[in-house]
Amino acid sequence: MENVSIGLLGFGTVGSGVVHIINAHQDRLEHQLGCQVSIRKILVQDPTKPRKVDLKDAVLTQDVNDIIDDPTIDVVIEVMGSVEDTKDYVSRALRNKKHILTANKDMMALYGNELLQLAQENEVDFYYEASVAGGIPIIRSLVEGLAPDRLTNLMGILNGTTNYILTKMSQEGRDYADVLKEAQSLGFAEADPTSDVEGLDAARKLKILASLGFSMDIDLADVSVTGISNVTQNDLEFCHQLGYSMKLIALANRDNGKVEVSVEPTLIPHEHPLAAVNNEFNAVYVNGEAIGELMFYGPGAGMLPTATAVVSDLMTVIKNMRLNVTGNSMTPPQYEKNLKTDDEVAAKYFVRLLAVDIPGTFAEVTTLFGQNDISLEKVLQLPVANEAHAEIVVTTYKTRKSNFNKVLQALENSIAVKNIKSYYRIEGE
Amino acid sequence: MENVSIGLLGFGTVGSGVVHIINAHQDRLEHQLGCQVSIRKILVQDPTKPRKVDLKDAVLTQDVNDIIDDPTIDVVIEVMGSVEDTKDYVSRALRNKKHILTANKDMMALYGNELLQLAQENEVDFYYEASVAGGIPIIRSLVEGLAPDRLTNLMGILNGTTNYILTKMSQEGRDYADVLKEAQSLGFAEADPTSDVEGLDAARKLKILASLGFSMDIDLADVSVTGISNVTQNDLEFCHQLGYSMKLIALANRDNGKVEVSVEPTLIPHEHPLAAVNNEFNAVYVNGEAIGELMFYGPGAGMLPTATAVVSDLMTVIKNMRLNVTGNSMTPPQYEKNLKTDDEVAAKYFVRLLAVDIPGTFAEVTTLFGQNDISLEKVLQLPVANEAHAEIVVTTYKTRKSNFNKVLQALENSIAVKNIKSYYRIEGE
Repeated sequence: MENVSIGLLGFGTVGSGVVHIINAHQDRLEHQLGCQVSIRKILVQDPTKPRKVDLKDAVLTQDVNDIIDDPTIDVVIEVMGSVEDTKDYVSRALRNKKHILTANKDMMALYGNELLQLAQENEVDFYYEASVAGGIPIIRSLVEGLAPDRLTNLMGILNGTTNYILTKMSQEGRDYADVLKEAQSLGFAEADPTSDVEGLDAARKLKILASLGFSMDIDLADVSVTGISNVTQNDLEFCHQLGYSMKLIALANRDNGKVEVSVEPTLIPHEHPLAAVNNEFNAVYVNGEAIGELMFYGPGAGMLPTATAVVSDLMTVIKNMRLNVTGNSMTPPQYEKNLKTDDEVAAKYFVRLLAVDIPGTFAEVTTLFGQNDISLEKVLQLPVANEAHAEIVVTTYKTRKSNFNKVLQALENSIAVKNIKSYYRIEGE
Repeated sequence: MENVSIGLLGFGTVGSGVVHIINAHQDRLEHQLGCQVSIRKILVQDPTKPRKVDLKDAVLTQDVNDIIDDPTIDVVIEVMGSVEDTKDYVSRALRNKKHILTANKDMMALYGNELLQLAQENEVDFYYEASVAGGIPIIRSLVEGLAPDRLTNLMGILNGTTNYILTKMSQEGRDYADVLKEAQSLGFAEADPTSDVEGLDAARKLKILASLGFSMDIDLADVSVTGISNVTQNDLEFCHQLGYSMKLIALANRDNGKVEVSVEPTLIPHEHPLAAVNNEFNAVYVNGEAIGELMFYGPGAGMLPTATAVVSDLMTVIKNMRLNVTGNSMTPPQYEKNLKTDDEVAAKYFVRLLAVDIPGTFAEVTTLFGQNDISLEKVLQLPVANEAHAEIVVTTYKTRKSNFNKVLQALENSIAVKNIKSYYRIEGE
């Protein structure tokens, strides 16, 4: 085996990064793999578009069949994005005995198991390190480094756009809309930011990590998702005052074999390692029965970090090819899916509300918490200038989510409460 | 292959952890490996000593030959520590075609290459994840996840004892001797703490990481080492005032193919991810040409974290055994060793000195820096109560280490300077 031939589906940011790394680090690849690696064909939309990387002998094509039906191509790298068509191309490539590498979290969140199964049936490799947290080798670490352990808790900052927005809002006292606009102009946020800011992107990545980390086939629909578009500067100021940083946390935890998966803006104590993960950086914090706490920190996106993850998978495939042991990249889940009910989810919460400023209001509000079996840890009450209202901020001790939902309902119905401004989960204490 | 048989050399903290994890997580191992894993024999000093873990069918022996000559044992796990005898046992086990896993950084720092070579000649596996940074899967990440990249910089907090001491000194304003005593009583520091506090332990781990990260055969003797035993509370206060945290940093960097390796107390800006690594935790921060910055954070020692690393290696070996592809765990270094001279090492520095408090002193001191081509970034001058001296603290811009050594000499010789109290490197800006 003197040369491994690659077909690339897509030639955007990550694709260009893959071509760049394979060109620029060829000596390193050859040294470690003992063979040359060359990109044979690249599927593009527009072959006339100028490209910034050296194509060497690679041929551009607009016909996907040129790649997936080419018997000389060993490995197909899918970096074109989107789901349905892409899944079809990848499936056909697998049936044609091509090894697959992908950076496509959307496709993996929806069809990962089906595709991994198909890879196994066809005795080819299928890796997807780049689909979660860009350059952080988190999938490899969960599957290999932490393989002997049983995870109890995973908390990820998996979306760079929302972490950038929350960081700037916190550090610079600016509003959500203002920072979002800036993030869009810097290219950190898309023109339509919904998938990022509403937590869907993080949910897809969490589905992938939680399924691996808990060895359980969790569905995207199992993830309860809340985004950051309603977070206000006031919320952040109160959080800071109480000793917390707000992060969009993708959380998965397990107790007694039952699992919870959620993405939501969450308060983390300032001294927690996740609180120091700022701007567009990503991080994954895990707790395991044996390992204790570990955190992986790094770039969650970007041309070269993501491409490094793709090429690290490529090196694994090529080593497997040389040893003739491809087709073993899948371990089926060990456990049946078993999700927690709201009675089994336990957390601390932060609640901020506007109360009617008359005698007895404060006692009424705190009584409602007590009636729902919730103890309060911290309480702030502040008058609101020029209004007959008081702002009340409380944090609770650990409580059942079902009880917390009940108290929210009771607060909504109470004549002492004008409205509930916001509430957030607290983790990491 | 229905069962893999293991011989354990040593039954101390890590050995007990390995036995515990193999017992307690047997279902997880069987699910992933498709075979049972059992510990057959354990080399101990005292077979009558009570043990806290369930031995199942394992036999205790005082004769190492019982293990390394036993043809039914597939894998030998070396967790006995020490170097010369241990290396002999491991070598003999390798010649008897046993796969080897070790947590022994001392042996790996001195004889790692020789042993890896021997493993390759005997077509067996040899892994040592547990030898550096306990439960953090850093070797795996360097060898696999970052394989396509070229590292430019690695900074590690690799010794939990010194990180604990520096954290407590910084956060609680206590003296070195006082905190060391506490660390000894808590079991974080040994009765003879020399290897930890003088930086030797970190140097051994750095030798291992730098050799892998830069694909260059670096010797332990190449690491320039300074410990923390001279760090004073005054130093820490000035650092803090200037915006830095002090950490014992194991540093390796590469420019133009030339490498520097050193362990020394180093000032890191408060906002750098390494500055948030406190108490006994370890972390490895790396920069790569493509990946940018990554950090791995976690427990650097401890029974179960270190044993998790050992058992993760064990799972890799067993997968290799099942696929019949053992003997491929070594990649020889890609580059000839090429170390930087002091002219090629560039860094910022912090210097604190006591000057004679007469007119012109301050100008004299700053002139000496200028004469050696060193620009000053920050300068503090403070009178010392009841003494005819002034304390001067400066930080420099980036300078050659050779020039910095010259200015230290010139300061020593100057009549304006009573003595140099301390100086430290600054990194991470």
